[in-house]
Amino acid sequence: MSGSSFGKIFRITTWGESHGPGVGVVIDGCPAGIPLCEEDIQRFLDRRRPGQSKYTTRRNEADSVEILSGVFEGKTTGTPISLLVRNQDQRSKDYGNIAVSYRPGHADYPFKEKYGFRDYRGGGRSSGRETIGRVAAGAVASRLLNELGITLCAYTKAIGPYTVDEADYDMSQITENSFYMPSSTAAEKAGEYVSSLMAETDSCGGIVECVADGLPVGIGEPVFDKLDALLAQAVMSIGAVKGVEIGDGFSAASSVGSRNNDPFRMRDGKVCKETNHSGGTLGGMSDGARLILRAAVKPTSSIAKTQHTVNESGEEIEISIHGRHDPVIVPRAVVVVESMTAVTIADLLLQNAVSKLDNIKKLYS
Amino acid sequence: MSGSSFGKIFRITTWGESHGPGVGVVIDGCPAGIPLCEEDIQRFLDRRRPGQSKYTTRRNEADSVEILSGVFEGKTTGTPISLLVRNQDQRSKDYGNIAVSYRPGHADYPFKEKYGFRDYRGGGRSSGRETIGRVAAGAVASRLLNELGITLCAYTKAIGPYTVDEADYDMSQITENSFYMPSSTAAEKAGEYVSSLMAETDSCGGIVECVADGLPVGIGEPVFDKLDALLAQAVMSIGAVKGVEIGDGFSAASSVGSRNNDPFRMRDGKVCKETNHSGGTLGGMSDGARLILRAAVKPTSSIAKTQHTVNESGEEIEISIHGRHDPVIVPRAVVVVESMTAVTIADLLLQNAVSKLDNIKKLYS
Amino acid sequence: MSGSSFGKIFRITTWGESHGPGVGVVIDGCPAGIPLCEEDIQRFLDRRRPGQSKYTTRRNEADSVEILSGVFEGKTTGTPISLLVRNQDQRSKDYGNIAVSYRPGHADYPFKEKYGFRDYRGGGRSSGRETIGRVAAGAVASRLLNELGITLCAYTKAIGPYTVDEADYDMSQITENSFYMPSSTAAEKAGEYVSSLMAETDSCGGIVECVADGLPVGIGEPVFDKLDALLAQAVMSIGAVKGVEIGDGFSAASSVGSRNNDPFRMRDGKVCKETNHSGGTLGGMSDGARLILRAAVKPTSSIAKTQHTVNESGEEIEISIHGRHDPVIVPRAVVVVESMTAVTIADLLLQNAVSKLDNIKKLYS
Amino acid sequence: MSGSSFGKIFRITTWGESHGPGVGVVIDGCPAGIPLCEEDIQRFLDRRRPGQSKYTTRRNEADSVEILSGVFEGKTTGTPISLLVRNQDQRSKDYGNIAVSYRPGHADYPFKEKYGFRDYRGGGRSSGRETIGRVAAGAVASRLLNELGITLCAYTKAIGPYTVDEADYDMSQITENSFYMPSSTAAEKAGEYVSSLMAETDSCGGIVECVADGLPVGIGEPVFDKLDALLAQAVMSIGAVKGVEIGDGFSAASSVGSRNNDPFRMRDGKVCKETNHSGGTLGGMSDGARLILRAAVKPTSSIAKTQHTVNESGEEIEISIHGRHDPVIVPRAVVVVESMTAVTIADLLLQNAVSKLDNIKKLYS
Repeated sequence: MSGSSFGKIFRITTWGESHGPGVGVVIDGCPAGIPLCEEDIQRFLDRRRPGQSKYTTRRNEADSVEILSGVFEGKTTGTPISLLVRNQDQRSKDYGNIAVSYRPGHADYPFKEKYGFRDYRGGGRSSGRETIGRVAAGAVASRLLNELGITLCAYTKAIGPYTVDEADYDMSQITENSFYMPSSTAAEKAGEYVSSLMAETDSCGGIVECVADGLPVGIGEPVFDKLDALLAQAVMSIGAVKGVEIGDGFSAASSVGSRNNDPFRMRDGKVCKETNHSGGTLGGMSDGARLILRAAVKPTSSIAKTQHTVNESGEEIEISIHGRHDPVIVPRAVVVVESMTAVTIADLLLQNAVSKLDNIKKLYS
Repeated sequence: MSGSSFGKIFRITTWGESHGPGVGVVIDGCPAGIPLCEEDIQRFLDRRRPGQSKYTTRRNEADSVEILSGVFEGKTTGTPISLLVRNQDQRSKDYGNIAVSYRPGHADYPFKEKYGFRDYRGGGRSSGRETIGRVAAGAVASRLLNELGITLCAYTKAIGPYTVDEADYDMSQITENSFYMPSSTAAEKAGEYVSSLMAETDSCGGIVECVADGLPVGIGEPVFDKLDALLAQAVMSIGAVKGVEIGDGFSAASSVGSRNNDPFRMRDGKVCKETNHSGGTLGGMSDGARLILRAAVKPTSSIAKTQHTVNESGEEIEISIHGRHDPVIVPRAVVVVESMTAVTIADLLLQNAVSKLDNIKKLYS
Repeated sequence: MSGSSFGKIFRITTWGESHGPGVGVVIDGCPAGIPLCEEDIQRFLDRRRPGQSKYTTRRNEADSVEILSGVFEGKTTGTPISLLVRNQDQRSKDYGNIAVSYRPGHADYPFKEKYGFRDYRGGGRSSGRETIGRVAAGAVASRLLNELGITLCAYTKAIGPYTVDEADYDMSQITENSFYMPSSTAAEKAGEYVSSLMAETDSCGGIVECVADGLPVGIGEPVFDKLDALLAQAVMSIGAVKGVEIGDGFSAASSVGSRNNDPFRMRDGKVCKETNHSGGTLGGMSDGARLILRAAVKPTSSIAKTQHTVNESGEEIEISIHGRHDPVIVPRAVVVVESMTAVTIADLLLQNAVSKLDNIKKLYS
Repeated sequence: MSGSSFGKIFRITTWGESHGPGVGVVIDGCPAGIPLCEEDIQRFLDRRRPGQSKYTTRRNEADSVEILSGVFEGKTTGTPISLLVRNQDQRSKDYGNIAVSYRPGHADYPFKEKYGFRDYRGGGRSSGRETIGRVAAGAVASRLLNELGITLCAYTKAIGPYTVDEADYDMSQITENSFYMPSSTAAEKAGEYVSSLMAETDSCGGIVECVADGLPVGIGEPVFDKLDALLAQAVMSIGAVKGVEIGDGFSAASSVGSRNNDPFRMRDGKVCKETNHSGGTLGGMSDGARLILRAAVKPTSSIAKTQHTVNESGEEIEISIHGRHDPVIVPRAVVVVESMTAVTIADLLLQNAVSKLDNIKKLYS
């Protein structure tokens, strides 16, 4: 069915396979009048591009974006924004084994069962290249959010078992290491760890954290379209993500009410919270505090280490997946998590605009 | 905006406040021909009813469901199923402080900001009674899933810091203790813990786990409507849930690829997996193994313990929330998590039915 | 599938069969703060109630509406508004023939084929009572539109071949005759015509016209969700409607550009049109002129005259449909057309609110 | 808001402006396994291409389509199909007057009011080129329908006042004249009429008729997503369409029940109808008879004849629109109406697949 769209007002539809002509996204429902150029989007895409360090794959794809519609004289027109990125590095090759085998940890088997056959080239639609459309859309959403004073920041909180402690956070370090970690010491340990795994032809996962500041209070719709619920969908829909939490998340399960509740206070004549265990949401709506979410990313499934599996003929075989694969996908997932967060907030922010008659009257009089 | 609906084909719309005339749900898109009676739904509702143990509130509401449409001669007709539960225990009372104060951990403040005013009686739309519609819909979804050989089971994995170890699981115990835990010893420790918190007028949270067996392979739509992504939205949208994970979830973040990948094997001529770290999904589609998800539930926000907060006039005050509140909401959340899981699977199962031309031809010839 | 909902932001979901416990609607996405009471809705329902003249059925149903949720202290809360009308006149009777025969002009046959069986009592879901939910929702939408200075008016333009000429329009007559026609002479002729058909146990159709004034310019979304396109869906989805046109409609097909184009002019410093052949829309958006639409309503299908048909066993039979049926449904369709128009405009008006960054900034600063 | 998508399962999203880099469509939810190549789509696009006769514009655009995704080894994969047509004939020119004036009959004025500014080049998003995405999607939908034995045929029923009588229909003539009329004599008269209008620098409209054969019974969802209701939206959303009718349409309004009802009969052991006044739908579902719909198309708005209008500064001016414009758009609208009909049927056909438990069981066992 049609599962390639996300959002209700600010609605994105991604398309494309890793080895077809290209990948892209159509953004429908973006308000008119937002300054936007290709460079705004390219900056985001460059953050997920491979070939940036020894810990990411050596493919060298430019991933240049082309704006096909929806922008006129440097501003969005209110009509759909179509963005295209051509696939460039499509080496014709013999997929051999891969074409008829189910790689462990990959979507090959369910894809075959669901559709009757599958595009076996590089994972087809379940390739990491599918995230290009998400990131391009995230760039546009961020442009809108920035106009309203909302800013987002995502980074790596953990690589394998190496986690950045709350006390060690140094945001200025994020762009200074290959892992986008807010701590040089944690990044150093992570580097050693990943190097050792590479030597063993193994891989690891980690945790991405994303924060957003400046959200007005009340963003998010009660019941099913809660801010945290849609963020959970948005982030869990990213390929390798296996868990999502907001604020204290799973730790809240072992806390007590008197500690977990965030007391309200007045500061400078404004309501605010003394603590932020809730991670910026109450009842599924933004509560004025910083929005905090975390995503658990599983270890890269493609490893050169020999694994057991079966092929389409139902024979048990051994498989060793060679090629240019990231030993850890987390650093490249950072901008994807940030992008999906931006898209989710943008959509709910527009939804919230029509929540009360006073707002409508303000616009139509 | 319209955030009270969930699902695309099997689509539920809940409505109702805790202190209005009633709560309910409309289920649109349920296939015709499913045997259904009020008793099927009542059985589910009874599982979330208050007044069942000393650890849940002493309100005594029958929560009797009435089928208003969509069922004829004991079978669903294919037209919308409207279900109504009247609110019975609506003591008229003086809300006093509560009506003009923001309770910590509750949605009062964002509700007021979003809509300009709020229904302060018992939390209004953000009350736990909102889940009645979810559970009634879950009963119908389960009826459909059962017809196809799919079964679900949810239970409490942890109360505060007391977790049931994998080794201790005894499913027969689930209905034998007030917490729905699959372990009598864990339930006993949990009981002592909750009693001690009640003495301190405090509260705690916990973890709900839900498993599903019998899913065909390929359920879930690639990209945004992945099985795990929609489960994440569905479960995170339940009032007190702060985190969701699938399979190994957050633990996968610190694992390695060679351990986290589940090797495929042939068993009895069928493809299956040796392990199930993925929790039954690959690429967002069911992979034939048991589906496993967990939800982190925060401690009950309403506590009698004195807390700091502010009122609508912007004054800092102290608040103590009396009334009939569960010291831990987890046991009553169990059936809600199971229901949302059932609704999500039912919807994606119907979506998957039209995934390939062969299926369509089978139906139209 | 789920086809019982309409609208994206102001989203209505109707449910109910003619001979079940009741019918109703859930309105999700209605902005908070709109004054609303049961009397507002009852007034609309009373306009479609049977038993009002000798030309409509003699069933005497009160059709009292109950607001089950979404209204607090006389104002909408922003959460779903659930409205219930109990079915009262459910005489238990022997459906005999009807239960196993396909009535010509009715939905019996496709219903049976689609769902495998059908609720044969009074047409089930395809009964005219399904429109009660539409009208109740239309009352709420109108309440919102009125707050913004938008007013609607629907009436009967033709009964069978008797049409009200443009020159004869006298709006004050609409409520003065049983047909809601804006002309006493046309109504008189229509009365004689319908009486003669009743004598022959036959029936007739007619045309409903609806106009709306006060729409801001730009309501309607380009491409598929054009104002006129959604009005066409909304109105064509009413049971007996077989055609919809906007402005000059089908007459425009035989006009020429120089006559059909409406020249723009300035009046009192404002842009306006000299003529209004377009019926108030340009490019699918409101153009500031009066919105005009017409719906063709077919003759009532239920007639006592003997007709050929077949039964479920595949036998050719004769059928004569007795009971309380309107010889012409048009007068009761008037408020339904007005209601669907109101719902469509309300939804698109809310959608348009977020069309440009300037609007968003106005609300979030 | 996001109004550029149509359909729920087979969901199309069009994008693009007349003078941007290109136009296109993303089709999400197309079942896997349908044979599809660029030539299938090109054939449809060629039917709407300008430069085909003296009655259509002399622009010479190849409108070559590129499949960017969703097709592998000659078959659809079940993932989104992205189709791109580059704009080729974008002469840079001085829009002068047009850029700041509101052309009568065009969307310029509401576009400006809605979005704050507008892409004035060739109508931007409201250009006829927007229909390229519709037609490309229609080609894919038709490919699916053909696999199931459903065929569509659209043609011109009237040019201005010149209508093809029922008795004169000769389907073999449709491709033999520039107007796609099923009658050579009517086409000849239409040709003379259009020539005379061209001499006067005026334009005309007409009526497109579309029929579909082979639909299974029961396609269309009761209530809002009726087959006829969604066809009405689909067809009315085409630029110049001002009216839509099904079967006898507006004529049914002046008929009587005993004549308008189509009696059921048995033929070759199958239920069928003696007549087809209903145009193939009952209660919004297909009834086994031929589906018949008509669309009223207004005269081309762009005429060289001098017209009154105003500019953005609020001055009354005179305007004469030169350039390459069709004196009548009807012939090029034929394939657009057929395409939108195909897309609507395809979507509802997939929706209907999951209408009953028996169908679901057939697929999952």
